[in-house]
This record gives sequence, structure tokens and C-alpha cells, in this order.
Amino acid sequence: MTRPLDRLRTASAERESAGLRRVLRPRTPDHDGLLDLASNDYLGLSRDERLVEAAVRATREWGTGSTGSRLVTGTTRLHADLEERLAAFTGADRALVFSSGYLANLGAVAALARGGLVVSDSGNHASIVDACRLSRSRVAVTPHGDVDAVAKVLAERSEEHAIVVTDAVFSVDGDLAPLRRLHAVAVRHGALLIVDEAHALGVVGDRGRGAVHEAGLSGDSHIVRTVTLSKSLGSQGGAVLGAPEVIETLVDTGRSFIFDTGLAPGCVGAALAALDILEESPDLPRQALSRARALAGMAREAGLETSEPAAAVVPVVLGPPQLALAAANLCAERGIRVGCFRPPSVPRGRSSLRLTARADLRSDDLAAVRGALTAVAELKVDT
Amino acid sequence: MTRPLDRLRTASAERESAGLRRVLRPRTPDHDGLLDLASNDYLGLSRDERLVEAAVRATREWGTGSTGSRLVTGTTRLHADLEERLAAFTGADRALVFSSGYLANLGAVAALARGGLVVSDSGNHASIVDACRLSRSRVAVTPHGDVDAVAKVLAERSEEHAIVVTDAVFSVDGDLAPLRRLHAVAVRHGALLIVDEAHALGVVGDRGRGAVHEAGLSGDSHIVRTVTLSKSLGSQGGAVLGAPEVIETLVDTGRSFIFDTGLAPGCVGAALAALDILEESPDLPRQALSRARALAGMAREAGLETSEPAAAVVPVVLGPPQLALAAANLCAERGIRVGCFRPPSVPRGRSSLRLTARADLRSDDLAAVRGALTAVAELKVDT
Repeated sequence: MTRPLDRLRTASAERESAGLRRVLRPRTPDHDGLLDLASNDYLGLSRDERLVEAAVRATREWGTGSTGSRLVTGTTRLHADLEERLAAFTGADRALVFSSGYLANLGAVAALARGGLVVSDSGNHASIVDACRLSRSRVAVTPHGDVDAVAKVLAERSEEHAIVVTDAVFSVDGDLAPLRRLHAVAVRHGALLIVDEAHALGVVGDRGRGAVHEAGLSGDSHIVRTVTLSKSLGSQGGAVLGAPEVIETLVDTGRSFIFDTGLAPGCVGAALAALDILEESPDLPRQALSRARALAGMAREAGLETSEPAAAVVPVVLGPPQLALAAANLCAERGIRVGCFRPPSVPRGRSSLRLTARADLRSDDLAAVRGALTAVAELKVDT
Repeated sequence: MTRPLDRLRTASAERESAGLRRVLRPRTPDHDGLLDLASNDYLGLSRDERLVEAAVRATREWGTGSTGSRLVTGTTRLHADLEERLAAFTGADRALVFSSGYLANLGAVAALARGGLVVSDSGNHASIVDACRLSRSRVAVTPHGDVDAVAKVLAERSEEHAIVVTDAVFSVDGDLAPLRRLHAVAVRHGALLIVDEAHALGVVGDRGRGAVHEAGLSGDSHIVRTVTLSKSLGSQGGAVLGAPEVIETLVDTGRSFIFDTGLAPGCVGAALAALDILEESPDLPRQALSRARALAGMAREAGLETSEPAAAVVPVVLGPPQLALAAANLCAERGIRVGCFRPPSVPRGRSSLRLTARADLRSDDLAAVRGALTAVAELKVDT
């Protein structure tokens, strides 16, 4: 009989030799003096004075916690305000706030799919993959971006009902889902389409209203959206957007909604302030997007593998995990913090740097990135 | 082909006639002027000035969001401080903070069980049930509190490794798990024991260090604990406590840790302040517990079904969901907000009121509760 900790130690040693160990590195408030191209703070709002003061006011008025499940004492008037504002901002009928985007995906997919068929893109985020596993439904994973495969699975299904679930902007490659075509296929086959706008909200479309809004589909009752409040909105939490029937289903049966503590009031206040800023500053999302395109252009010029970004996420694919780690360290030596994605965050053989653009990057920031990417390209050639 | 929203409407109508519809009722900061016996704010800390000011300071210093995954930019020095303090407070080797207790359970059970056997008590919280479903392991559900059944399943297993998972204090009945006996069985069979201290931390044991500490097991490396920061600590978030090997496994492979945004700095600051208060005020947990016992005594005197509380949770079982709802409304009319638990939160036929004690309940509060419980008993007889 192997003792439990011996088993964990053995597995850890295996990860070590595969280059898959992780170490948490606590940072300072100013990201250790490094240029931050790693966070998801796409609009640079997480330290904006307006968000900070809104969070302070909310905390002073409502306290440091919501004190219970949203069904019991965890729904304050501030939560209701945020739900109204999120729905209005995105053009959805209604919204329901969760304590994280992860839990919003678990709740939406599991409650809406149950007993039916779930069709999930192979590039979907881990929280959607886990949501599929929790759905107690048959799950069909279709090749990335392959609408015909989705149509085929829906047409050949034996289940009465079905949902199709996709990221709007994929977190690894930064590309956009074919939302109009997916929507047409879903409608034709009587399926709901769930779109995770985590990386799209605040960056894609007019004022950052997201990819579904940009595709002209925000009023369609066949579409359910999930969003996060922790990326462009600079706070924490998530939400589901959809028709009243969808929201009522989640309130009554969404396990990750019912059995979780409501979002802390300070986070609710910060997200409300971020929505104010998005309404007032229509250029902000465009700035994030144009900086992302500039970063991708530099990676291409350096001879690195990247793709045209649909939002603020710019991947630079390097291959082996050890090379990705060495490249991230090289960037850090040059004063730039980038993300380093290895399995299980990306498929094997696709370890990457992940650069995220922020609306407030300046031209000298971009010049520093250009130098670092050139050095990464040289490192890759030498390896 | 049923249209998707028609299907949801039909299901909603069925829940309506079964008494299982829920309506969110946004509250005011002072709980609409009602006496709060419904929240999980067991020590009354969520509006404590010390927590509020700690959250304000943390938000001003660190911003309104952690900006990314804990593996990328979402680990601040404040997160590391909280992890050290949680480990020291509970007598654990190490701690790892998640953005919710729900996600802490998903991460711990799924990452530690994978490919083995999970033995789960039938009374475990929904987040543990979901964690079992996500574990990709065989799950054996044992009768509530039945240690012999756990031993039998472990002895007869074909899997090399196994974990046993239990709430410390069960959220519905408020009773304590037989931790010492479960621990002995787990050790004998080479299994890890995961204990969810959500309702025990801050209430059970010396200074509220929890049920595992109280059982003298806090230094044992076979035990992994999960806690929430959103109940007695008055904040939001969760954590896993355990041996270094356990924490490293979660950092490398815990999906709900890796793929979620780190906890917002304000919530981290509030939880740190709550730990300060627990260290300084050894009477606080005892006060919550004695108030709970007083509430249970009143329910019994009124002829209602309850049980001796191990922590701050006091159930009053009424049976049909409609009766539980009517009883909760009756309490509200008398100025007291109580929880009303119906399926899926409780088994069918076990719809209940759920009273939660707070350390700061006064004697006139308790007198008002006595009157309301007497009225509930009359309502039950009349029904």
C-alpha cells in the first residue's frame, strides 16, 4: 500500500522532470517594477481611483462580505443594481451575478444542459470543460471553430434538447468564435447557444459590449452569455446574461449559484464603477485592441508564431514547456512580465508565452517588448 | 421539437406547483430592519469596523482585483500573508487561498482523488458532491456518519489510492462528523481524509480553530482541510490546508485554482483582520455556540424537530416545502429573518427553517425568537 503523501511526491517528481512544476511568486502592488503584460487587467482599471473608491464606499456601506447564499442573505440592493446595469450594458434581458466566472460557467452549463446534449468546442476554457463534466449530459467535443461539426452532432442527436457552448474569444489562441454561424445552427436545431465573453467583454465591440453584441445577437433569446468581472472590469466575480426563463432556471436550480456565498459588496461596487467608465470612455476598448495588434505584429516581425488577436490576448507559441519557461524568464530579465502557459493550460507541444495588451500601454512600453521578443526569437533558434 | 425557452418555462411551472420556485429579495444594509438569523456571519464580523478598514486599506494598496490567475499575476504578498496566517491559526503545514470555498472543494477533491476512489458522506455539501462528480474517480456515497460503512468501502476497494471526504459540521443538520474515528479508518486503509471546515472554522474549538484542531488532528499529514472565508471570517473566498505535498499538487494540477482569478485583495485583507480578532477574542466562538444551543432549546420547548448544534447552525425540520416557506414568512412578519431550506438544498420531505446563531445576539433578540418559534409550532399543528 503506497502511503498517500508518497504517491503525491512521486507525481510531483514526474511533473518536475517534465517541466510542469509551478511556483507561486507573490508580487508587489507595482508588479515588482516589471511592465505587466501578463494580467487580464485589459483596460488597466484594477487600480483606477474610481473603482477603488467605489469599492471602498460599498464596503463601508454593506460590509466586507455578502454573509450568505444569494438565496438567503447574499443578495443586496447593490447586487440587484449590478445585474440591471450588466443587462443594460450588454443588451441582455437579465443578468445574474456569481462570485466567479468559473462558477457562472458551471452553473449555466449544468443547469441548462441537464439530461440533454452538450456540444463543446475543443478550445473551450477549463471552466467550460468542468461544466460539461458536471452537466450529467452527453458531451460532444467538436474540433475548434468547426461549425459544420456542430451542425452534424445536433442533427444526429437522439436527445430532445441540446446546448452549444463556446468561448467568444478563446483564452489560449485569442481568436474569435464564428458566433453568427453557430447561432444560425443552434436556432435551426432548437438548441441554446452559451457564449463565454470572459475575454471579450470590455474589449470587443462598441464600448466593449462584447462579441455577441457586436454580432448583432444580443437581443436573441436563444443566446445565453457568461461574463467575468475580473478581467477588463478590474474586479472579481462573474455573471450569466440571458432571457428571464434562463435566469429563473439558474436561481431555482443552479447549484454553483444556490450553494455559494454571494459576491462581496466591494467587488460589486468596483464592477459598477467599471461599467460607468466603459459608458463614458468609448475609446478604451479600441485602445486595448490596437495595442494587442501591435504586440502581435512585433512577434511576427521577430519570426515567432502568433495569430491576429480578436481581443487583448496575444499568444506566442514556442513548443516545449522548458523553452516557454526560459523565454518568460528572459522577458522578466528585460523588465517585462509575460504569461507562460504550459500543459494543462495548453495542449502538449504548444507551450506558449501569452502577452496581454492593456489600453494604457505607452510607445516606450511597446519598444521594450519589441526588444524582448527579438531576444526570445534568438533563444528559440539557439535551442 | 420543443423550443429551448418553452422547455425552461414548462420546468419552471412544475417547480412552481411543487413549491420550489425561488425569488431573490435584495436586502438593505441592515437586513431590512429584521433580526438576522439567516446569514452565515456567525461572529457578526462582516460589518466590523476592523474588517472594513482592513479591506479598505488592502483595496487602496493593491487595487480592486487580483488581475489574473494565482499562477500568473493573481498572487500578491497579501495572499501569501493570508496563507501563512491561516496555516498558523489552524495548525496546518500550509494553506492555499481560492476565490471561493466552493472552488476550494472542487480543486481539493478532484486533484487529490483523481483515478482513485472517493468515499463521500451522504450529508456532504453540494460543493463536495460536485467535486466528487468532477473527480473522474469512482465515488462511493456512505450513509450519514457511518464510519463502519466507510471502513468497509475502503477495505474492499480495488483502487490503489482513496480519499474520504466529509463536512466537519454538516450544513443542513448542524451535526459534527466523527472525525477521530474517520481519521483512524483513513490511516488504517492508506487514504487521505478531506474535512470541510466551512461551518466549523471560527466557531468550533479553542479560538475557533476548527473541528480538526479540536480533535487533536491538526498536525496529521493524512488530513486535508478546506475552509471558507465567507462565514465566520466575514469575507469571501476559501482555502485548502494541508501538507506541502498537498498544496504543491493543487498548485500544479488543481483546475479550479489554476483557471480562476485570484481572490480580490480587499477580501484577503478582511480575512486577515478576522484572524486577528479571533486570536484576540477567545470568547467569541463560545458565544456563537452558546447562542446556537439557546436557539435549539427554544425550538425543542416549542415542540419542533431540531438537533443539538455542534456549531452555529440550528435546523428546524418542518417537512413540506410550502410549510417551510409559510413558517419563514411568519418569522419575517415577527421581525426575524430565518433561512428556508427546500430541495435541492435538503432531501425531499425535509424542508426546514435554518436558524443561524451569531455571537452578538442579545437576550431580547432571543426572546423575540422564542415567540416566533411558538407561532411556527402552532402553524405546523394547524397545517
